Amino acid sequence: MRALTVIPGSPGSAAVRDVPDPVPGPGDLLVDGLAVGVCGTDREIAAGEYGWAPPGQEHLVIGHESLGRVQEAPQGSGLAPGDLVVGVVRRPDPVPCGACAHGAFDMCRNGRYTERGIKELPGYAGERWCVEADYAVRLDPALADVGVLLEPTSVVAKAWQQIELIGGRSWFEPRTVLVTGAGPIGLLAALLGVQRGLEVHVLDRVTDGVKPGLVRDLGATYHSNGFDDAVAAGRPDVVVEATGAAPLVMAAMGATSPYGLTCLTGVSPRGRRIEWDAGGLNRSMVLENDAVFGSVNANLDHYRAAADALAGADRDWLDRLLTRRVPLASATDALRPDPDGVKTVITLET
Amino acid sequence: MRALTVIPGSPGSAAVRDVPDPVPGPGDLLVDGLAVGVCGTDREIAAGEYGWAPPGQEHLVIGHESLGRVQEAPQGSGLAPGDLVVGVVRRPDPVPCGACAHGAFDMCRNGRYTERGIKELPGYAGERWCVEADYAVRLDPALADVGVLLEPTSVVAKAWQQIELIGGRSWFEPRTVLVTGAGPIGLLAALLGVQRGLEVHVLDRVTDGVKPGLVRDLGATYHSNGFDDAVAAGRPDVVVEATGAAPLVMAAMGATSPYGLTCLTGVSPRGRRIEWDAGGLNRSMVLENDAVFGSVNANLDHYRAAADALAGADRDWLDRLLTRRVPLASATDALRPDPDGVKTVITLET
Repeated sequence: MRALTVIPGSPGSAAVRDVPDPVPGPGDLLVDGLAVGVCGTDREIAAGEYGWAPPGQEHLVIGHESLGRVQEAPQGSGLAPGDLVVGVVRRPDPVPCGACAHGAFDMCRNGRYTERGIKELPGYAGERWCVEADYAVRLDPALADVGVLLEPTSVVAKAWQQIELIGGRSWFEPRTVLVTGAGPIGLLAALLGVQRGLEVHVLDRVTDGVKPGLVRDLGATYHSNGFDDAVAAGRPDVVVEATGAAPLVMAAMGATSPYGLTCLTGVSPRGRRIEWDAGGLNRSMVLENDAVFGSVNANLDHYRAAADALAGADRDWLDRLLTRRVPLASATDALRPDPDGVKTVITLET
Repeated sequence: MRALTVIPGSPGSAAVRDVPDPVPGPGDLLVDGLAVGVCGTDREIAAGEYGWAPPGQEHLVIGHESLGRVQEAPQGSGLAPGDLVVGVVRRPDPVPCGACAHGAFDMCRNGRYTERGIKELPGYAGERWCVEADYAVRLDPALADVGVLLEPTSVVAKAWQQIELIGGRSWFEPRTVLVTGAGPIGLLAALLGVQRGLEVHVLDRVTDGVKPGLVRDLGATYHSNGFDDAVAAGRPDVVVEATGAAPLVMAAMGATSPYGLTCLTGVSPRGRRIEWDAGGLNRSMVLENDAVFGSVNANLDHYRAAADALAGADRDWLDRLLTRRVPLASATDALRPDPDGVKTVITLET
């Protein structure tokens, strides 16, 4: 079968190649790939800056934002041919840390997890793939066109769960949320904020393209005149930071209302040194009981919460997030950034 | 009676003066003062930089780290003459915010709380004082000499409660804690860390005086060669930052192990600008699911937890924290900083 592969560490090695057909082991589903989403991590891997091939192999099949249709399912798995499924990205090490042993592999302590399409396990950017039934999440059949958004939504569902758990350490009834960055994570964070009944504001730099309309059609407010302008109308109770831009990260930390929460989701490069009033930041965090936390990856609970969130969303709105669809044959084109779009997907149906 | 008063906003106005005897209202205890502790907030108030007198009055009786013995108690209060009590500092506004309405006045959202000895309510640095029975915490009678440590301990008990609640959002079994700063808050944070069975490290600058011995006698490890040296043996799972020094605050945020927690408790001045790798800090916080939060003040639950913590501690060790005892007649002397000591108390017994 055909799949999108890279040689990790080798820039420009991404190619659509023939690879052996996957063979399901006991407990595995055999799945026909429908689509994979492309994100910054895939582009980092294609640039040779990240990613690990399976032990003893040269190539890594990439793709971790999956969507497929079950072709074969083991008896007793609760899944059946025709089911729409997404495969989970991360797997705990066979000798798990305490978090992984408790199903919280998104909070892995020792870093010895593996990840489909990223770290030592083949990804989902192939015409067919296998996945352990225990690591497959069934989607509402109506989500066939947009279910490829489940993995980024799972990251956002985790972020919101963390916001609620950390906020819930005392009395917590947030009203407003500011999302910085209107990429896929930011827009999905805005969606889940609206689903929670919050007043949602989204900040981005662009003034045209699809982003302003997507925000407005959620019933949220779009801001493009910078951070200070976005918080001028009132300090948010929650900030979801989805750009990773160092000055925005620091501004977000200090901008929330008392007992504010800032959730960091954007992965930034090291070495972005900036000068900052660290004394003032500390003072306001202490005197206001503010919290700032990073959130990455997702465990099975978050995938299931994300499936519910997508099932409850407007499907046309979700479809508009998929601004570029590239067939597998031209999949290397999908690895080019698309700054005006939101989410690029590679379609796998043959 | 005699009390230590200031004219808020007027540096150098601290004086021991005659003030009217307090008159208990319905539900109030009348208490003979035993001692009040002095902290940085008192020194800020004495310097004219903080503090508000009761409405319509010129003077504020200061003192919020209280200890007294009940002289009169209302029927049905559960308290009796002779009981050792501490008065709580903060009171919610009569029109409370949501947090205050739920007893979480330490997390007040609108800032309209009042505070004994700080903000619009007379403090406890007088020979006698009144306190609502509902805002008095009874102490183990054996704590008569050291119970004045209850208020700073309540701040630390809240910090540890927050660490456990935020850590408990997923699997959490911390092993090591680093406390930065061996002042009263830092040493009490170390005590509560040891009580939790953790491996405790304490960082301070001094190499002599009482602090190294106090840390060692807890069974903890004292470090005085800087932050990098203190974490060289291993990244801590939890940092309790108790200096407010901007570079330490920023270093602490990025120093924890994966899923690390940094609790900020030190109040720093604004305007301490430093250059920092904000990109690297954000990256490690996101990829490691780290959390940083500020913690200030305490509610009734935290006072009770603190009373339990003090009752379970070695009383000689607690007594060694009280490095200077100044009689009320010379109370203005107690407002001078004592950099080599730990806690200065004003004794009130006549």
